[in-house]
Amino acid sequence: MAWNTNLRWRLPVTCLLLQVALVVLFGVFVRYDADADAHWIDDRLSQNISSDMDNEFYYRYPSFQDVHVMIFVGFGFLMTFLQRYGFSAVGFNFLLAAFGIQWALLMQGWFHHYDQGYIFIGVENLINADFCVGSVCVAFGAVLGKVSPIQLLIMTLFQVTLFSVNEFILLSLLEVKDAGGSMTIHTFGAYFGLTVTWILYRPNLHQSKERQSSVYHSDLFAMIGTLFLWMYWPSFNSAVSNHGDAQHRAAINTYCSLAACVLTSVALSSALHKKGKLDMVHIQNATLAGGVAVGTAAEMMLMPYGSLIVGFICGIISTLGFVYLTPFLESRLRIQDTCGIHNLHGIPGIIGGIVGAVTAACANSAVYGKEGLVHAFGFKGSWTSSTQGKFQAAGIFISLAMALVGGSIVGMILKLPFWGQPSDENCFEDAVYWEVPEDQKNTASRPEDPTLNPLEP
Amino acid sequence: MAWNTNLRWRLPVTCLLLQVALVVLFGVFVRYDADADAHWIDDRLSQNISSDMDNEFYYRYPSFQDVHVMIFVGFGFLMTFLQRYGFSAVGFNFLLAAFGIQWALLMQGWFHHYDQGYIFIGVENLINADFCVGSVCVAFGAVLGKVSPIQLLIMTLFQVTLFSVNEFILLSLLEVKDAGGSMTIHTFGAYFGLTVTWILYRPNLHQSKERQSSVYHSDLFAMIGTLFLWMYWPSFNSAVSNHGDAQHRAAINTYCSLAACVLTSVALSSALHKKGKLDMVHIQNATLAGGVAVGTAAEMMLMPYGSLIVGFICGIISTLGFVYLTPFLESRLRIQDTCGIHNLHGIPGIIGGIVGAVTAACANSAVYGKEGLVHAFGFKGSWTSSTQGKFQAAGIFISLAMALVGGSIVGMILKLPFWGQPSDENCFEDAVYWEVPEDQKNTASRPEDPTLNPLEP
Amino acid sequence: MAWNTNLRWRLPVTCLLLQVALVVLFGVFVRYDADADAHWIDDRLSQNISSDMDNEFYYRYPSFQDVHVMIFVGFGFLMTFLQRYGFSAVGFNFLLAAFGIQWALLMQGWFHHYDQGYIFIGVENLINADFCVGSVCVAFGAVLGKVSPIQLLIMTLFQVTLFSVNEFILLSLLEVKDAGGSMTIHTFGAYFGLTVTWILYRPNLHQSKERQSSVYHSDLFAMIGTLFLWMYWPSFNSAVSNHGDAQHRAAINTYCSLAACVLTSVALSSALHKKGKLDMVHIQNATLAGGVAVGTAAEMMLMPYGSLIVGFICGIISTLGFVYLTPFLESRLRIQDTCGIHNLHGIPGIIGGIVGAVTAACANSAVYGKEGLVHAFGFKGSWTSSTQGKFQAAGIFISLAMALVGGSIVGMILKLPFWGQPSDENCFEDAVYWEVPEDQKNTASRPEDPTLNPLEP
Repeated sequence: MAWNTNLRWRLPVTCLLLQVALVVLFGVFVRYDADADAHWIDDRLSQNISSDMDNEFYYRYPSFQDVHVMIFVGFGFLMTFLQRYGFSAVGFNFLLAAFGIQWALLMQGWFHHYDQGYIFIGVENLINADFCVGSVCVAFGAVLGKVSPIQLLIMTLFQVTLFSVNEFILLSLLEVKDAGGSMTIHTFGAYFGLTVTWILYRPNLHQSKERQSSVYHSDLFAMIGTLFLWMYWPSFNSAVSNHGDAQHRAAINTYCSLAACVLTSVALSSALHKKGKLDMVHIQNATLAGGVAVGTAAEMMLMPYGSLIVGFICGIISTLGFVYLTPFLESRLRIQDTCGIHNLHGIPGIIGGIVGAVTAACANSAVYGKEGLVHAFGFKGSWTSSTQGKFQAAGIFISLAMALVGGSIVGMILKLPFWGQPSDENCFEDAVYWEVPEDQKNTASRPEDPTLNPLEP
Repeated sequence: MAWNTNLRWRLPVTCLLLQVALVVLFGVFVRYDADADAHWIDDRLSQNISSDMDNEFYYRYPSFQDVHVMIFVGFGFLMTFLQRYGFSAVGFNFLLAAFGIQWALLMQGWFHHYDQGYIFIGVENLINADFCVGSVCVAFGAVLGKVSPIQLLIMTLFQVTLFSVNEFILLSLLEVKDAGGSMTIHTFGAYFGLTVTWILYRPNLHQSKERQSSVYHSDLFAMIGTLFLWMYWPSFNSAVSNHGDAQHRAAINTYCSLAACVLTSVALSSALHKKGKLDMVHIQNATLAGGVAVGTAAEMMLMPYGSLIVGFICGIISTLGFVYLTPFLESRLRIQDTCGIHNLHGIPGIIGGIVGAVTAACANSAVYGKEGLVHAFGFKGSWTSSTQGKFQAAGIFISLAMALVGGSIVGMILKLPFWGQPSDENCFEDAVYWEVPEDQKNTASRPEDPTLNPLEP
Repeated sequence: MAWNTNLRWRLPVTCLLLQVALVVLFGVFVRYDADADAHWIDDRLSQNISSDMDNEFYYRYPSFQDVHVMIFVGFGFLMTFLQRYGFSAVGFNFLLAAFGIQWALLMQGWFHHYDQGYIFIGVENLINADFCVGSVCVAFGAVLGKVSPIQLLIMTLFQVTLFSVNEFILLSLLEVKDAGGSMTIHTFGAYFGLTVTWILYRPNLHQSKERQSSVYHSDLFAMIGTLFLWMYWPSFNSAVSNHGDAQHRAAINTYCSLAACVLTSVALSSALHKKGKLDMVHIQNATLAGGVAVGTAAEMMLMPYGSLIVGFICGIISTLGFVYLTPFLESRLRIQDTCGIHNLHGIPGIIGGIVGAVTAACANSAVYGKEGLVHAFGFKGSWTSSTQGKFQAAGIFISLAMALVGGSIVGMILKLPFWGQPSDENCFEDAVYWEVPEDQKNTASRPEDPTLNPLEP
């Protein structure tokens, strides 16, 4: 399979076409919302609003910036753990996210903020666009090292579209609560990515095996990603919750869940090594599972101990997944999951959906207060906690179905031979798509590996 | 001293036991406070509060996230300067802090937020938990490279407990002001850690000497830690101050002090080298001393020039400490202080306590305004500036006494031979507790060091 | 040219003299502004202000911290791409910025916040001081690797002074809008730095050529800088805008422009390489040009699609600049621009000024609302959009003139032979000014380069 990996015309044309289309669509559709438009001051004066602080900007902007860091530095650096794929990890993540947020502003705008021919955007849209791209970053983890940047752009185009459809079904049609995106972001993103990588199965990937590991400093770079994800996850799960107590509570619950998750991840990592040593892969990934798994329920009255229990369980399951499930998926199901997203986003995402459904089903006015219950869930008419719980559960299945069907179709498209994908022996290698510095070139054709010459693919 | 460093059962059991205990205690005691509880909306409606912005979340959350970054990325990466101890620096810091914040929520909660059988937590508790763990991170700096993760967890358990007792004595009984924790965090943390490392003295540590230095890129990783600590320190010192002018002033003072500290650190670093070259150790550490030393007084009317003077002095003293005091402590007093915390947290912490006492003693209504003076210090009855100053000074001595006594006891406990600590020739070596990548393994048994084989301890 | 690079006395004396002067000047002039002074509470009580949130601190502090990160981590790490100059990049940037922010607080204070003998400072002053230093960081990029830390301090002293004069002319005399500093920060900073490096032309710089490239991990460190600049740029451009819609809009516009810029930078980088490979230099730098170029207009009603167009164009022009213009400037005009600031700050800065002028000239009450127009531009009397546009355009030329004249004079001063500058064969080498770890020392005198011995300069 000697594909042509010279992207000289294909990548520029793809980028420019997409960007021109975005400019045109933005020109036709996108406008500032009331809080970001210069007319805001006229509205305020006419309404006698006393404080500039009422602008939505001040409720959401700090959280937005934290989420922004998670997408670009968090996901980007988390994937730099491979010894010769750091440029691609952080660079392609940068590219796909920069494209994805623009496309997401449009897609999500059409579904949720479309009025009289225009999409009106404000800071909450920026956050939701980052969220949407988060699911693409998750899927990127599954195919990391095995696809070209063009394939990533194509995948982003379709995945953002499907994400927005799925999100619309869940949030608007089923009135599901999913502020931190356990279902819409993580479950959908993970199973979408896993399906794509399953379709793109490479039987001879072992030829790139030596590059599919880390070096000492690449693991430290990856820890930058891990820690920024871990630290800012409370902002992620609270960013689009209701003002006040819901945002406040979501941050507390996520903080608790993540803390518990670290201890059980460390415990399992050590227990599963024959000499009790810790494995960086687990510390980099499993410690984050607690954040994924409280995504849906974080803004609910999960209680701090409930969050600890969720984190406790996910640290264990996620680490077990890295040790036992990932090798099994690869050898038996032909699912080559580079970053182990199934353990970090897949299973914890489903757990998060379930926790959310149960927590919602248990909601009552004793716990939430009379107005609080309505405020938190928007109950009206015959809609009760029990109904909410059932619809939450349905959301999990719909997200899974969208991911599997969508991933299959997109996988097929990406299997076409002209996207510039690397051959099996050139996977996980920056030199295929990047001009690399001399120190990496020198180690490229090592004596123990005479056939490899990624510099002239 | 051939201790068994295989932690296969000990570390998992320790982590799981601690985490199970935390889950149970949280279940019994911890609830959301009024601003994070779903009843908040009912309360608001009944009180006609006009803006959601009054939720404490919006006053504290941005500062909280900055503090969170300081604890996990700041302290974690600051300690990655050692050439073969980056995984442990950032990983063990992650572990102890994740455990510590949970335990601190309970300990500080019992002392300060206990009401009718419950601890009520909100964003301020999260900040205070991070603060408390900050003192453990400080102490970790003294024993870095010489202890096992189990010892760190045990140390954290006790240190958080003692921190909370000391904090209660200072803040609640003596009504001392210490928003940035010069006394409670830095003085206590530093002398606690120094006492522990003194008890754990290793006479043959020179056997690990070659690993007790940096490599080029490890020093750059450490600069990530330094800069995030330096940049976010204004948030640290202002995070729990009174709303409004106090938070505002604390940020300004810390900004000023830190800036001045950089120039004098650089000046001394160059002046003390025979060829005038700068030493990364000073740039990584002494530049931060100004933040420590305005911890107590930052929220007071220290004045910008007062802050500059504090930073000026601390940059000088801290750098002098690294050059002259640390070697002296090691050779004469048998205090092996890996990161030089005495220079960054010990002396500057005491200076900070003194600056705070003097500034408080000088407070008067001409400077603070009539209401401002009461608002800032909570004076009532016969309590005057002079009384406040004396109690502030007492706080320094109490913190020191708690640190020395507590550190001695905890040091004794950690000296027991079954915690999995490394032998003297295996200190500062990740391979003892971590599965390390091939590139580090290959350099492990270097020709010039034939006796070392950390991979099979 | 064997200059003496031993800074043992010169650097300490320079730092200490500057810092002592700053302490004295702060003592004489600097006080807290009303929102940071303890009297604030008295004022509030007398004015019946209901919420602590009205303190300016809460409007600006999150943005301030983001800007702070951009200056110290963003610029600092962006410049670590050189293989043997990481300590200097991040360390000297730290030094000059720490000095510069103090001096900027004074200079900008005298021009804008001087009242009855005092400068009153608050959080907005901290942001503006960071902004001012940003222009010095830009100029540092041009001379990176070729100057001593003393030269950088001298340059900072003069550049901050000139920046403040220029800023006063633009913002106060011409009433130009330039919230994100396309003119005052980027245009001024870039052409100032280019003029300085032109005066400091080194004909034999090729002797250091092999060190003027990156290694694999140095490029990853640089990406930390790039991403923090990129992510926080919306905060940079909105940090000092009017409360409410202006801040909100500035963030949205910058977010859009930067996203578009990534795609066109990637497109051009690939298209300009004969095998279609991406170049890290472009990804690290050109992707940021969109943030520079919406600096002036971000707070105006540029519209999201307008922002996309600006980013689109700047990604292309900036990448073209790196490929064609930088080599031309060096070979023909003797401008040795280490980081290519002309492509990232120079041209995009001018474009930003033009975009701002055009956007301002087109402002009308249909777009801004009646009050909104006055609120946004402060129009009064005969001052119209057209006048505003002309004055905006004038601002570009004044900034350029100040940069060229100021840069020439400062360049002359820096050319004096006693500042400890490195010889041509020792440029881009940390070992000249830093005690470097063993691993870098060992590679210093490589066989292919026998004459180099930077350790004994």
